[in-house]
Amino acid sequence: MTIRVAIAGPRGKMGAEAVHTIMKNGKMELVAVLDYKEVGVTLADLDMFPSNYTAPIFTDMKELVAATDPDVLVDLTNPHAVYKHTKEALALNVRPVIGTTGFTDAQLEELTALAREKDLGCIIAPNFAIGAILMMKFAKEAAKYLPDVEIIEMHHDQKLDAPSGTGVKTAQMIQEVRAQKIQGHLEEKETIEGARGADFDGMRIHSVRLPGLVAHQQVLFGGDGQLLTIRHDSLNRASFMSGVAFCVEEVMKMDQLVYGLENII
Amino acid sequence: MTIRVAIAGPRGKMGAEAVHTIMKNGKMELVAVLDYKEVGVTLADLDMFPSNYTAPIFTDMKELVAATDPDVLVDLTNPHAVYKHTKEALALNVRPVIGTTGFTDAQLEELTALAREKDLGCIIAPNFAIGAILMMKFAKEAAKYLPDVEIIEMHHDQKLDAPSGTGVKTAQMIQEVRAQKIQGHLEEKETIEGARGADFDGMRIHSVRLPGLVAHQQVLFGGDGQLLTIRHDSLNRASFMSGVAFCVEEVMKMDQLVYGLENII
Amino acid sequence: MTIRVAIAGPRGKMGAEAVHTIMKNGKMELVAVLDYKEVGVTLADLDMFPSNYTAPIFTDMKELVAATDPDVLVDLTNPHAVYKHTKEALALNVRPVIGTTGFTDAQLEELTALAREKDLGCIIAPNFAIGAILMMKFAKEAAKYLPDVEIIEMHHDQKLDAPSGTGVKTAQMIQEVRAQKIQGHLEEKETIEGARGADFDGMRIHSVRLPGLVAHQQVLFGGDGQLLTIRHDSLNRASFMSGVAFCVEEVMKMDQLVYGLENII
Amino acid sequence: MTIRVAIAGPRGKMGAEAVHTIMKNGKMELVAVLDYKEVGVTLADLDMFPSNYTAPIFTDMKELVAATDPDVLVDLTNPHAVYKHTKEALALNVRPVIGTTGFTDAQLEELTALAREKDLGCIIAPNFAIGAILMMKFAKEAAKYLPDVEIIEMHHDQKLDAPSGTGVKTAQMIQEVRAQKIQGHLEEKETIEGARGADFDGMRIHSVRLPGLVAHQQVLFGGDGQLLTIRHDSLNRASFMSGVAFCVEEVMKMDQLVYGLENII
Repeated sequence: MTIRVAIAGPRGKMGAEAVHTIMKNGKMELVAVLDYKEVGVTLADLDMFPSNYTAPIFTDMKELVAATDPDVLVDLTNPHAVYKHTKEALALNVRPVIGTTGFTDAQLEELTALAREKDLGCIIAPNFAIGAILMMKFAKEAAKYLPDVEIIEMHHDQKLDAPSGTGVKTAQMIQEVRAQKIQGHLEEKETIEGARGADFDGMRIHSVRLPGLVAHQQVLFGGDGQLLTIRHDSLNRASFMSGVAFCVEEVMKMDQLVYGLENII
Repeated sequence: MTIRVAIAGPRGKMGAEAVHTIMKNGKMELVAVLDYKEVGVTLADLDMFPSNYTAPIFTDMKELVAATDPDVLVDLTNPHAVYKHTKEALALNVRPVIGTTGFTDAQLEELTALAREKDLGCIIAPNFAIGAILMMKFAKEAAKYLPDVEIIEMHHDQKLDAPSGTGVKTAQMIQEVRAQKIQGHLEEKETIEGARGADFDGMRIHSVRLPGLVAHQQVLFGGDGQLLTIRHDSLNRASFMSGVAFCVEEVMKMDQLVYGLENII
Repeated sequence: MTIRVAIAGPRGKMGAEAVHTIMKNGKMELVAVLDYKEVGVTLADLDMFPSNYTAPIFTDMKELVAATDPDVLVDLTNPHAVYKHTKEALALNVRPVIGTTGFTDAQLEELTALAREKDLGCIIAPNFAIGAILMMKFAKEAAKYLPDVEIIEMHHDQKLDAPSGTGVKTAQMIQEVRAQKIQGHLEEKETIEGARGADFDGMRIHSVRLPGLVAHQQVLFGGDGQLLTIRHDSLNRASFMSGVAFCVEEVMKMDQLVYGLENII
Repeated sequence: MTIRVAIAGPRGKMGAEAVHTIMKNGKMELVAVLDYKEVGVTLADLDMFPSNYTAPIFTDMKELVAATDPDVLVDLTNPHAVYKHTKEALALNVRPVIGTTGFTDAQLEELTALAREKDLGCIIAPNFAIGAILMMKFAKEAAKYLPDVEIIEMHHDQKLDAPSGTGVKTAQMIQEVRAQKIQGHLEEKETIEGARGADFDGMRIHSVRLPGLVAHQQVLFGGDGQLLTIRHDSLNRASFMSGVAFCVEEVMKMDQLVYGLENII
């Protein structure tokens, strides 16, 4: 039986990718989309989608659910509406798959309680790239056995902050399990400042910025006579979409809210 | 409290490395070595060890245990003696840490029963390189989510067989969990035979051989817009020794026989 | 002084990228485009370009040159028209920068003679990705000193042929200078057929195909105790455009036809 | 005709490797060694060499040359004797292949003049790893076309200084040809100090230190949609020896002094 999916914000960059992803997935059916204004009867009426994209457009969640009975709502938009959508979906017995980092702790607690009360799966994830989640998970596991760690994250040269969010998150996850240790030679000396990178609890993080790069990270673990490297390369937005499809399947088997893909992978 | 360690075959390549490893480890004490012939009173009498290596040499296990009361026997030799040593050690309440692939199923069953009867930990491992074990374990985990896999293993150009044992073992471990699938384009065509590598149940294994290489492997997982790579580089025998030290600690907490490091990592 | 550039085929994928490239380049000015049909007065009249793209559209080369006096014609289309355009441009004293592989030897000879007669620079290049050209050039140079070579080329899994054209071209360039040698152990044995890759004059080429990959190649050189690796990653069409801009500058300094970027880099 | 080679300092680490290298090379013959004390009649009398190493030992260069007529003197020792040996060798019409960084400018000028006067080849090289020389040479070449550069050098965790000498040397060579530019986003911000590495004239150098690493460096060049990477891995002292053998052959064809392998490669 196919999973009936509704998508919010089909004209946004991520929303449009999600539309294509569900349309191409044999196990799923796109039954409706939720948009902020009436722009046509179906997706096919928008210039940006092909004519066989016949999912109807709604501006009201209740009407959408009444008319098309979706199993799952995918919402990758990032506005204030997401919190409202998630609540509405749960109230209407639709399982949410949400991509955002913007919820407050109070909001998360409320949604967690709502999902439990309804016995409904709900996934909220800041990062849908399964490969990146696996990289962080494996890095945390490896650090138990090989506590000498350096992280090299590499991004396009228009990125403002260094280290990257994923770089710091990886170091934090490793920190939870890694035996405290000072790496490198005790009398190590930088002849040019910054050569040894950012110090995060003894681990080093190096940020490479070059045109041509997209989003890449490698975590290196050194041991006697050996090196273990875990690397993730994200080349475009499509890297998020296999995670979305995975979550649509997983959320159907769940009966509570989970925050972060690392907790279901 | 330090762990009292005895080592068999201290003059072999691996045995000598193990001697250095235990001598340098603050949590362990080398209390004796087992050799096949009387060559001196202590290791220091052998040309190959420094004068502060004062562990006494024995040729008989019973005498060794009676005189030095070890907690653990490390045996990385590969001769027929290993099986006998393991049995003797367990009988004398010494926990074995054994590196060999040579045991028959019947021998393993007998040793398993003996360890259980004695409530003694015993580790038998074909591969002590923790990084390599982690690589295989992570690869198996990743294949559940990203079933498109290619393995590139790289070794020195004097290696006789291709693919490597580790390459095939990795593919076998992945095969246990990976959804059956045909990779690549259905009408893919090799204009030079062999370009696409060895076919292992739809996965491809590529064997690179060059002077200068030692033993390296990367496992690549592709997904929409992303790539996950797990790589292990083994540069010398020392890569086995951190695994040996790890096992000496672990075997003290165990009360049964375990075959393969992947089952305790 | 800015270089005055005309572009043929502004609505094709490569042509449109070229339009953006020239528009963003401070040393160049886009003075006109050549299209196959009258579709508007300027690029801005086409839906796909912003309103400040005011270069006029022509369907006839003579009129274009008479009206806008370009220094260089960029033609990245691949149709039969390219040969005609190149001849016309040279006749009208415009320097051509051409991206195609489709010319016959007779056509190349004729164009070479025409450029020499006119003392005009002309660049015809099958590949404008400067990084890929450098990779091949360096690989050829390195092979003189380190004759043990393996090539790993990696592409998306919808590619039909293996090895890739660049992989074979690289091997051919190396072959010109590499001392003939049989690599690997003489008694090397494939336990699974194809493991050692494609044999090209003793070198091995391995073709990896995975979703998520775009176009990547590494050339590995092994020597006693060392490894030299030259790698190129091409992530999107933009990789061709810096080569186009480079050629527009170079062609202004030249007075003859050059085939292949490797001959001016 | 084989090249007749003498080696100074055969009992040092590098000297002993050189002895093995020449003994294994079919185009060369080890005719004598120069040692600082009389320790036997031939190398075979020393514990560290096999019995077929029958090259005679001398303590005086003049006697050595008179008795064994070498074409080339290889001196990889690093003491004050090297300068004296080089002068003596040239005076006796023997071509020196010298590995040291210790000469003063005055000494180099004197030796250069002496070689020219004698019309004799002489190679003095701080680094014999051909792969490392090629990496630096290619990096300098690539920077002309792709001026966005970052260097990642990786060494064992007992190294004292960061960045490495090779890392800085590479940056200096690139600096000679690279168009001055500020890399990265103008408002880039380090949230943890040092993340962006060492700043060398706008280029960034990152120093990774981990147990298990030996000596590795990659130079990354970014461009629109592409990345070019040049990497060298040095895994043991043998990486110097193919350079030594190469120089023994080259020095026979030369008639002057050359400083640095990059000038003959």
